[in-house]
Amino acid sequence: MERRNVRLVLAYDGTEFLGWERQAEGRTVQAVVEAALGELHGHPVGVVAAGRTDSGVHAAGQVISFSSDSPVPDDRFHHALNGLLPHDVRALRGGRVGDEFNARYSARARVYKYYLRAEEVECPTTRRYCWSLRKPPDLRRLISLSAAVVGTHDFTTFAASGDSSASKVRDVYSSVFYREGDALVFKIAGNAFLYRMVRSLVGTFVELETRGEGPEKLKELLARRDRDAAGPTAPARGLFLEKVLYDDETPA
Amino acid sequence: MERRNVRLVLAYDGTEFLGWERQAEGRTVQAVVEAALGELHGHPVGVVAAGRTDSGVHAAGQVISFSSDSPVPDDRFHHALNGLLPHDVRALRGGRVGDEFNARYSARARVYKYYLRAEEVECPTTRRYCWSLRKPPDLRRLISLSAAVVGTHDFTTFAASGDSSASKVRDVYSSVFYREGDALVFKIAGNAFLYRMVRSLVGTFVELETRGEGPEKLKELLARRDRDAAGPTAPARGLFLEKVLYDDETPA
Repeated sequence: MERRNVRLVLAYDGTEFLGWERQAEGRTVQAVVEAALGELHGHPVGVVAAGRTDSGVHAAGQVISFSSDSPVPDDRFHHALNGLLPHDVRALRGGRVGDEFNARYSARARVYKYYLRAEEVECPTTRRYCWSLRKPPDLRRLISLSAAVVGTHDFTTFAASGDSSASKVRDVYSSVFYREGDALVFKIAGNAFLYRMVRSLVGTFVELETRGEGPEKLKELLARRDRDAAGPTAPARGLFLEKVLYDDETPA
Repeated sequence: MERRNVRLVLAYDGTEFLGWERQAEGRTVQAVVEAALGELHGHPVGVVAAGRTDSGVHAAGQVISFSSDSPVPDDRFHHALNGLLPHDVRALRGGRVGDEFNARYSARARVYKYYLRAEEVECPTTRRYCWSLRKPPDLRRLISLSAAVVGTHDFTTFAASGDSSASKVRDVYSSVFYREGDALVFKIAGNAFLYRMVRSLVGTFVELETRGEGPEKLKELLARRDRDAAGPTAPARGLFLEKVLYDDETPA
């Protein structure tokens, strides 16, 4: 069978996963996807993902790539895989890409969304997918705080202790809050993100908003390059890997 | 301690419940709520609910009433109870009501919402709360089908075999489809509903829409008073008991 490089876009509910990356024990998205691909191919298949989402984090547009010798036609690949995946992971679309494509190293930008709700009592049918705040935050102040991280910065302040990146410098292309129905959404796009950086930013924005602090304070924390300067890390359940952007020659 | 009649509004995620009503075995919302109230009071407390939601059905505004001798102040009752309830059930608000109030028998109207999504692949982070359809239905046709049930009718066609009501006549005050974000919502208000009636209506609307049938066909099925004339029953996971309406003298 001819070998081809395949790209797939995945969505998953992270609640019952210990994150993307395969571990010695425990249910991970990578292990579940590789098991389904192994079943489809009749031999083990290893995949590469654009974002190694953490335990409890969801995805609306994770991207993976792998080499395949399956006879399944390109436009049916995601359907064939869905027949073998559990309901909390779905392949949305995908197909053949050039041999040089790698879901992780070819990615030009990642977009994350973080959902918050202000409500006196936590709503039981949205709690899996958002952070419930007791007091409604001031949206304009959150917008002005979030704008302060746009640009190229050393994000050491907002990296968790588990981050192993040599450089903590990242490019943030956009960072904004807006309303979506009953929810407040934080949306951030950047070339890449440090370990738990988005949740650390959200926790810090919310804390600074509560304390009445403005963007100068956020810039000061950023300049300190000190993990202890950040606010609390927002819960995993509000975070979604929304999409991954590649060069134009890559089919969307 | 003085005895008072208490009304509470509840929300719950029905996914991991065998419905509202207490059963010999299995997790039900009534059993969980009565266990928490029993703990709060130090003795068993029985509750009455406005709607006996079925296995897997959710609530955004279920209403219960019960007699209490607890010293907890009226405006703290829901918070005290939330400290004892699991995360998939929350008391939203409530307090003291007149002795004549009964959540079930005083109810003047129930409002249900049913959520649908049209998507090629079922989204894993909305699937607990909606019915995923492969083909986008025509909204205008659904609206015209749903309008055909407004009024006082014998709804035998849309009652499941388990319905034990003596009369199958119900008053439907409003019945409509509309868009809400990415979802299609069916909203229906009536004095009361037969067992699985809302899900039977939704399943029939969707089937008739797919077959290109109009409101005349719906009226014909209704007139037959024959359960076998209805379409398939829509899945429980899309259905929410949205709210219950009482006479004006009852605090909301």
